[in-house]
Amino acid sequence: MSSPTYNNNNNNSNSNNGSQLANMELLTLDNPVFCCYLFWATVLVAKMLLMSLLTALQRFRYKVFPNEEDLFFKNIEVQFDDPHVERVRRAHRNDMENILPYFIMALIYVCTNPNPLVACNLFRVAAIARIVHTLVYAVYPVPQPSRILAFATMMLITFYMAAVVALRTLRFI
Amino acid sequence: MSSPTYNNNNNNSNSNNGSQLANMELLTLDNPVFCCYLFWATVLVAKMLLMSLLTALQRFRYKVFPNEEDLFFKNIEVQFDDPHVERVRRAHRNDMENILPYFIMALIYVCTNPNPLVACNLFRVAAIARIVHTLVYAVYPVPQPSRILAFATMMLITFYMAAVVALRTLRFI
Amino acid sequence: MSSPTYNNNNNNSNSNNGSQLANMELLTLDNPVFCCYLFWATVLVAKMLLMSLLTALQRFRYKVFPNEEDLFFKNIEVQFDDPHVERVRRAHRNDMENILPYFIMALIYVCTNPNPLVACNLFRVAAIARIVHTLVYAVYPVPQPSRILAFATMMLITFYMAAVVALRTLRFI
Repeated sequence: MSSPTYNNNNNNSNSNNGSQLANMELLTLDNPVFCCYLFWATVLVAKMLLMSLLTALQRFRYKVFPNEEDLFFKNIEVQFDDPHVERVRRAHRNDMENILPYFIMALIYVCTNPNPLVACNLFRVAAIARIVHTLVYAVYPVPQPSRILAFATMMLITFYMAAVVALRTLRFI
Repeated sequence: MSSPTYNNNNNNSNSNNGSQLANMELLTLDNPVFCCYLFWATVLVAKMLLMSLLTALQRFRYKVFPNEEDLFFKNIEVQFDDPHVERVRRAHRNDMENILPYFIMALIYVCTNPNPLVACNLFRVAAIARIVHTLVYAVYPVPQPSRILAFATMMLITFYMAAVVALRTLRFI
Repeated sequence: MSSPTYNNNNNNSNSNNGSQLANMELLTLDNPVFCCYLFWATVLVAKMLLMSLLTALQRFRYKVFPNEEDLFFKNIEVQFDDPHVERVRRAHRNDMENILPYFIMALIYVCTNPNPLVACNLFRVAAIARIVHTLVYAVYPVPQPSRILAFATMMLITFYMAAVVALRTLRFI
């Protein structure tokens, strides 16, 4: 009974009658758009955590550790400039710069009751683009512009969501 | 019909009758405080994404790239210590350190049904302070304490929200 | 009147009757699980902000500043490789890498209406593990594996929440 409610209210979500009910249900598992956000946000959280493990893997592989207490092998010293480790760390930092703001932006985009088809496909494309970004940056470096395209995809999606939310809430400036 | 509900319930939001209704509506577009949060969070998300573009701009301007596959010009090598690029990156990192926790803190502060006037003005001041922070740090460096003041403004606001939420939820420790 | 509703609906939260009501109340102060999340998320936000102050403290203590305009003492130059400052910065970056995704992951985990006892204890353990992580990393370095254990605790909790949410929302892929 919940799904049709969204589709009906979608075209006139600014109307007074009915919008109150629809809005209240937006951040629940009854809202398929929110469920889609939940799934792909979860995928991206898991992907980000795997970056930490990938960094640790590279550290053990090349025996590069940044702290005195981490020197698990004999006759090594702290080191900060190994290119293999730094590459994964740059990819991880890029994730934080882009995915973490996206989490908030997409969540509040869901609160504006967007078109389900548009919203779900944006979530899918954004998540897959960032997985591709990680693959071509940290796992197996390939020539540009592959990384730039993957980077730009989520950035443009986040800007689109920002534009939608800003226009809807402009009078509360 | 929804706005007056907040104002009436604001002073006695802990009361049992009526609080259930008010709480349920907090994270919807019917709540002006939430709309104000949405708008200014969106502004800050856009500002953070622009930092990535500003970093890219500086990289192309000074021909400083951190990866082999990014060497778009001839006869240059990977470089990590350019002061112009590093300044923008430090500003961007400072954004992540402060704005990203603020997003979560402000969102859960909205859930405690705060005074609308106080909450909206906190959102406005915090967002403008961080825009000033970026201007005086990354765009056009000016002498201290301008940056410290801009930095401290959002930090104090976040601590204030943390105190409000912690006091309201202390019995769930 | 709200608490028993959660306990009753917990085992059959996918059923159609009643689940709509329960879901709507999840992100409100009527939900003790959400309140517990609010409290411990607030603790972690405050902890993260204190890392900024700890970095500033180390900078003044060892007179190490990264920007020209920050040289508050005479006869010093910008410096980036002080081990005391960099240690706190690494701990802070590790916080961002782990706590910020956890904030989103735990929030959407609350939306799946988890068992209150399990959820609340996960929030408590995760927050305390990260406080321990900061103490053994940035405040008073102790030998491994203390830091690895503290790090792994929150990471495993986040992966567990990710698995729960992904399984619940898998059909919205």
